[in-house]
Amino acid sequence: MNYKMIGRFIAQILAVSAVFMIPAWIISLCCGETASADAFMETVLLIGVISGGLLLLCRNAPKVFHAREGMVCVGISWIVLSLTGCLPFYLSGEYPSYIDAFFEIVAGFTTTGATTLSDVEVLPKGIIYWRCFSQWLGGMGVLVLLLAIIPSNGGTGYTMHLLRAESPGPDVGKIVPRMKKTAMILYVLYVVLTIINMLFLIAGRMPLFEAVCTAFSTAGTGGFSIKNDSMASYSPYIQNVTAVFMALFGINFSCFYLLLMGQFRGVFKDEELRLYLGLIFGSILLITLDIRGLYDNLWEALRHAAFQVSSVITSTCYVTTNYDVWPSFSKTILLCLMAIGACAGSTGGGFKCARILILFKGIRRSTRQVISPQYVKVIRNNGRAINEQVVINTFGYFAAYMMMLIISVLLISIDGYSFGTNFSAVLASMNNMGPGIEAVGPTCNFSGYSTFSKLVLTFDMLAGRLELFPIFVLFSRDMWKIR
Amino acid sequence: MNYKMIGRFIAQILAVSAVFMIPAWIISLCCGETASADAFMETVLLIGVISGGLLLLCRNAPKVFHAREGMVCVGISWIVLSLTGCLPFYLSGEYPSYIDAFFEIVAGFTTTGATTLSDVEVLPKGIIYWRCFSQWLGGMGVLVLLLAIIPSNGGTGYTMHLLRAESPGPDVGKIVPRMKKTAMILYVLYVVLTIINMLFLIAGRMPLFEAVCTAFSTAGTGGFSIKNDSMASYSPYIQNVTAVFMALFGINFSCFYLLLMGQFRGVFKDEELRLYLGLIFGSILLITLDIRGLYDNLWEALRHAAFQVSSVITSTCYVTTNYDVWPSFSKTILLCLMAIGACAGSTGGGFKCARILILFKGIRRSTRQVISPQYVKVIRNNGRAINEQVVINTFGYFAAYMMMLIISVLLISIDGYSFGTNFSAVLASMNNMGPGIEAVGPTCNFSGYSTFSKLVLTFDMLAGRLELFPIFVLFSRDMWKIR
Repeated sequence: MNYKMIGRFIAQILAVSAVFMIPAWIISLCCGETASADAFMETVLLIGVISGGLLLLCRNAPKVFHAREGMVCVGISWIVLSLTGCLPFYLSGEYPSYIDAFFEIVAGFTTTGATTLSDVEVLPKGIIYWRCFSQWLGGMGVLVLLLAIIPSNGGTGYTMHLLRAESPGPDVGKIVPRMKKTAMILYVLYVVLTIINMLFLIAGRMPLFEAVCTAFSTAGTGGFSIKNDSMASYSPYIQNVTAVFMALFGINFSCFYLLLMGQFRGVFKDEELRLYLGLIFGSILLITLDIRGLYDNLWEALRHAAFQVSSVITSTCYVTTNYDVWPSFSKTILLCLMAIGACAGSTGGGFKCARILILFKGIRRSTRQVISPQYVKVIRNNGRAINEQVVINTFGYFAAYMMMLIISVLLISIDGYSFGTNFSAVLASMNNMGPGIEAVGPTCNFSGYSTFSKLVLTFDMLAGRLELFPIFVLFSRDMWKIR
Repeated sequence: MNYKMIGRFIAQILAVSAVFMIPAWIISLCCGETASADAFMETVLLIGVISGGLLLLCRNAPKVFHAREGMVCVGISWIVLSLTGCLPFYLSGEYPSYIDAFFEIVAGFTTTGATTLSDVEVLPKGIIYWRCFSQWLGGMGVLVLLLAIIPSNGGTGYTMHLLRAESPGPDVGKIVPRMKKTAMILYVLYVVLTIINMLFLIAGRMPLFEAVCTAFSTAGTGGFSIKNDSMASYSPYIQNVTAVFMALFGINFSCFYLLLMGQFRGVFKDEELRLYLGLIFGSILLITLDIRGLYDNLWEALRHAAFQVSSVITSTCYVTTNYDVWPSFSKTILLCLMAIGACAGSTGGGFKCARILILFKGIRRSTRQVISPQYVKVIRNNGRAINEQVVINTFGYFAAYMMMLIISVLLISIDGYSFGTNFSAVLASMNNMGPGIEAVGPTCNFSGYSTFSKLVLTFDMLAGRLELFPIFVLFSRDMWKIR
């Protein structure tokens, strides 16, 4: 294991996070919020010291970098980032305990958007900004950012192993042959889309600060809102804009790149995009028909249905209306969309449409093999053959995912909440959704859980965001035995 | 497709089912239940006519018999058996509609034990006997029985393809090299164990008729009871006997054969058996500690915990106490056991311990491969390498299982019941459990669902019992395209 390389990488990532904390600090200073301004300052200084020390310790790292180092790097740096990133929350005194602050920042970085607070409107502006910004940073991935901005000095496979470990989806598609350039293109697209979203919000007369924070949360498909009622009190225009942008941020970013390059046919023939859009429009249609009696007219029903579908499939989980009162059929559709999630290579969470496609094709092949045992077929995506290892890993990922879900539900059930509450809390954490149903529903929060359960859920959020294996390997004995 | 062979096979299986209906007819006659006696007589005659006609039509069948014919045979014969087996229920006038009767017999044959009736004690004795016997017949498999008793005349692979399609578990283990003899050994063991169970019940002063019916339901791990309160009103002795026998019928029957052959070491080293017993004893311990405050003393808590664990892991789902009032942790353990199920090659339902082992080993291997991508390892069970195709199919089965669960929940949610009710109804149907929670809980029944939902759940029971693929292939276009 190349410990020095890992150490240097973590030092760099901590430094980047400290730099990003400075705007929050300035906002706190400008608004005269002394407690949170001090908290940001102390955190930035502390991170600076740690980062500097680590860099000194880890000079002259060898250039060998394997897949396992990439996994460990990603796993550890997300944990370290969260351990330091929550310090402003804790030091400002806005959160009752360090664990609550830690839960909140993990919900931020992983774009889960779950909270233990019942009133977010009273938070200092600097804290609100840092909450929302953490979602933007975690959405596309902080390592991807680091790889895009710092000069590559990692030797063979360095960038690829890191990108592969952090990026969501069954298989990392390179947009361009060089990984570093891929990371840069991703971030440029991300920044541009976020700014467009912000401008649309401002055009709807949303105050600048709210527009910035909302755009950050939307872009990361996180769901931290600056209002206690999420998006319910905003105008229909702002809700519609947000619905459209949530759906956009759930699309694989390579599609946007292909569109910019003029390759329209490739985009419109993309099987994952077709499934994703099909699910969105199909669900909106069914839900609108199902809930039309609950609203004044069909248009209002359509607006709420569209917002909720877009919000849930991308794992953002803003709300405009209490969908807990909708009929069972509509709620079940939403739960299914929650489990499916957005496209691979987007900022959305969940299991990912690309994996669903592979699972479906794999099941079809199995059925065919039952009929004729000697039948052999390669599974294809957009006409290209998928490596058999990716197929096996997708099925393995699904099984690992379900096992982790079941074990987590069992662990937090000690607190005595109902099965529905526990199940939805774990599902929402692992899929980086945010609220669940019943006692952790859209109008409630996670504060009732014990410290132990909060740690389990925090672990689920991290494992869900990093797609299990970067976290699993940290607990694998085999991992630490190698050399 | 060898339609003649399939037709002849179905004719034979119908004839067997008619023969088994005769005791129920006699019981009805002896008890002076004219309506149900007539119903049995009419059904037996009708089946005789259909069976005879089919046999005449399907003379001179060619001897070619592939895996696909085995699958189709199993799928169709279970459906046909249910369509005719429910006629006594319907014709006797005890069930409000043919669909309710069909639901009930499918719940019988698949050993689900779900019912649409609120009062089973008023049923005629003949009907009660047929309900319980259907569970015994379905438990080990009616095709297995047919293969054990009729002379093999099917050409190459006939017996193997059929046994493989009907038997539960990821891979069919032959007890002895000849499949026909394996089927006979299985049934002899099954009959002997059922009789021992019966004798133990009679020793506890249970009336003969009740003992026979209860032993049938227990042996098939079905759960149809002859009392409305299931096993709650029986003595602790009878409850304990039943708990032990349920657990025994959840063990792979090849273990019993090995024990009889004196191969104790092989049995005690069997990984699946160890997991199964470990789950049972671990769960009993945890639940006893969790519920000790609810009962007078620790022994009573232990008794209820042991009964419920044994009942749920084998998918029998008798109840001695309303476990819906137990703490969340205990209920979650029970739900996990429901999902896991018993051993492969037993009469128990669920996902099967053998598959859980393969999934766990597969996930461990995937984690290891993430660390070193060139890592290659064969997964072993009891030291023997498992064919890679079995591993892939197990993961595929798991995914297919979950997809079917989600789609079914979506379909029955149209009726408007809560997510918990729908989810548990589908889980209980697919795992052949019986009651679920909330509106289909241990004190309720399935009568509230619409005809459409009942058909969906019936389909789930059949697909769950036959482990999906024999039912899936009936809907596969590829299947019917071949020659």
